[in-house]
Amino acid sequence: MSLHNLFASRISGMKASEIRELLKLLDQPDIISFAGGIPDPALFPVEAFQQAMAKALGGGNHAASLQYSASEGYLPLREWIAGEMGRLGIPCAAGNILITSGSQQALDYLGKLFLSPGDTALVGWPTYLGALGAFNAYEPRYDRLQPGGNRSAADYVAAAGAGRVKFAYLSVDFANPTGVTLTQAERENVLDLAEDLDCAVIEDAAYQSLRYDGEAIPPILALEIARKGNIDACRTVYCGSFSKTLSPGLRIGWVCAAKSVINQMVLLKQAGDLHTATLNQMAIAEVAKDDFDGHLQALRASYRARRDRMLAALERHMPDGVEWTRPEGGMFVWLTLPKGMDGADLLARSLRTEKVAFVPGGAFFADGSGRNSLRLNFSSPSQQAIDEGVARLGRVLQAALAPARGLSVAG
Amino acid sequence: MSLHNLFASRISGMKASEIRELLKLLDQPDIISFAGGIPDPALFPVEAFQQAMAKALGGGNHAASLQYSASEGYLPLREWIAGEMGRLGIPCAAGNILITSGSQQALDYLGKLFLSPGDTALVGWPTYLGALGAFNAYEPRYDRLQPGGNRSAADYVAAAGAGRVKFAYLSVDFANPTGVTLTQAERENVLDLAEDLDCAVIEDAAYQSLRYDGEAIPPILALEIARKGNIDACRTVYCGSFSKTLSPGLRIGWVCAAKSVINQMVLLKQAGDLHTATLNQMAIAEVAKDDFDGHLQALRASYRARRDRMLAALERHMPDGVEWTRPEGGMFVWLTLPKGMDGADLLARSLRTEKVAFVPGGAFFADGSGRNSLRLNFSSPSQQAIDEGVARLGRVLQAALAPARGLSVAG
Repeated sequence: MSLHNLFASRISGMKASEIRELLKLLDQPDIISFAGGIPDPALFPVEAFQQAMAKALGGGNHAASLQYSASEGYLPLREWIAGEMGRLGIPCAAGNILITSGSQQALDYLGKLFLSPGDTALVGWPTYLGALGAFNAYEPRYDRLQPGGNRSAADYVAAAGAGRVKFAYLSVDFANPTGVTLTQAERENVLDLAEDLDCAVIEDAAYQSLRYDGEAIPPILALEIARKGNIDACRTVYCGSFSKTLSPGLRIGWVCAAKSVINQMVLLKQAGDLHTATLNQMAIAEVAKDDFDGHLQALRASYRARRDRMLAALERHMPDGVEWTRPEGGMFVWLTLPKGMDGADLLARSLRTEKVAFVPGGAFFADGSGRNSLRLNFSSPSQQAIDEGVARLGRVLQAALAPARGLSVAG
Repeated sequence: MSLHNLFASRISGMKASEIRELLKLLDQPDIISFAGGIPDPALFPVEAFQQAMAKALGGGNHAASLQYSASEGYLPLREWIAGEMGRLGIPCAAGNILITSGSQQALDYLGKLFLSPGDTALVGWPTYLGALGAFNAYEPRYDRLQPGGNRSAADYVAAAGAGRVKFAYLSVDFANPTGVTLTQAERENVLDLAEDLDCAVIEDAAYQSLRYDGEAIPPILALEIARKGNIDACRTVYCGSFSKTLSPGLRIGWVCAAKSVINQMVLLKQAGDLHTATLNQMAIAEVAKDDFDGHLQALRASYRARRDRMLAALERHMPDGVEWTRPEGGMFVWLTLPKGMDGADLLARSLRTEKVAFVPGGAFFADGSGRNSLRLNFSSPSQQAIDEGVARLGRVLQAALAPARGLSVAG
């Protein structure tokens, strides 16, 4: 007996993620893994959470913290976030904020809000794998977003066929998977294109707080507010998260957008899971108010050192023909291998011969291209593990490249 | 500027819930509210949660509790739930359990799993409002499920038109909103119909643990296992929740079903919000293991007394022509008013003249019928408030009925 014949048509487009299958490998202690995208748990503000939880459950507060609460989220948290958004050049009020169960849920609900089957979502080649996973449920077409590229709005409209371009999705700072940051000119280009297409912009800011050097660039939503005067006139939807700063396990993210968008998303939230866990929102609000900036400084110092260590190790160990990004923040370095190499094949070889894990790049491309690439995470392994793991990866790549080059010479 | 012209077609079917708008009234202290569906926070096992949270955040456990975790859920919790399911006549393993962010999320994901636009969902007239809210996002048609009714499978197929009947959704014990429990024969009828239609059965067991008297009846999934030998051969999907037993604010529910269904739902969970909050799952597992049965006994004693108080007050105060259910458990009594009366009009009058709140019944009917009904909650108000509130409601109904009857006599 199987119910597969009863499944909706959307289900055929939803497959197991390569990353998810890979994470199962992390349980093997002798593997050095650059495959995750997870924070270092040693940096979680655990004492602050212990105190915040004790407070939220003590003194009668449990009557609120363990109870149902509003679909839009816990008001003091929404107010605190609105204040933070103001510091980023996005003046707004609590009414512009919806709390979600992590920013992954924001992506799911935004797909649900905008995408009818056959509509087009513009995404990067590559883009965040979880965004493709969320959007796939709504059966879109994908087209390639190239900020500053030479395609006109008419070209995008033509490619969208009978559907409509509904939004451009992009991660602007130290993007997952590439670590690349969009310039201000590229952000303005995205806004121009969105105006021409009359589509929304989904700005994924999951890594925004994790800048290790260079000057901060205003979020797209801030640039649009600068054009239009206020957030309620804007088409950009900003998705934020506490997963990379305080704790991913509590599943707290947010959406910041025009009130008309937030009001509709509150209905999706109500229909989807009623509300985000009350206790978690109260705890995050308490911890965030305590010393968010101080905590971020400690995080940045630790991750900056690991990024530097990884970039230095790559210089030492990567063979000729391998290129990589130099991210100003975030958690990832992106490697591009010589054409014809396949990251998935390499992973199989790497796990067998050197016990080092990473994510093959192909999964991040909506069109299945980009197989000669891979993603390395530096937030999770120690500096020693980074040195050793990159050395191992260098040997894997040397071995993979050697026969091909040998043949080329022989031929 | 509005993005409404960009919204997907499904959005037009998603409206604000009457209950949600009503809950905003609860902030007024002089209103006696029978409108909520919420547990009494005085019954939350707060000390157990304090200890469980301290444990989950102490002794290095924060490295797991604050971190990302598996989409299927926390294994010790899934194992504990599988054991509980066994006690209900549903032998199963952790692989048959998915943890969700409350059972509302299970309903959303089941709609996503099964419903293509135009497919039919069979639901009760009335049914749980939140189920309609969740399913509406997937643009189904609704047809009326009548266990033991005289419509054949062919009748349902004919009514489904070009779409297909994908599932029958029902709450079997002390249903929200009616408080009614399905007999074993009716449960068998639902299974027979599902076999004939080759559709799934979604069994909402949110109130299952809250039985105050009478004998427990096996869940539909248990009856199907008795027919077929094992859960992996079954078409019934059981949705459970800790919201009515331990805490709704932590948002922990589960789905118990054939592994092939769970495996697909894990992909929806991964795409939807990655996983349910890790800390919350660990805390619930700890509290549940501690003394779940003892806690349930205390809950049942308290709610049983309130149900008895409400039924006695209804006997005293309801005018002739008003009928109501006598639930064996749960949180709700359902009133049916004389034909032609409108629960929504009555609420407006009731709030104005007597300051007593309830939920008008019409919202629970997928076809918009049933306006001469209303739902009363007895789990949230005190016994004194129940006495006083039902007396007030009696006056409202007397006043509403009087002119009509006067006219009738005069006419």
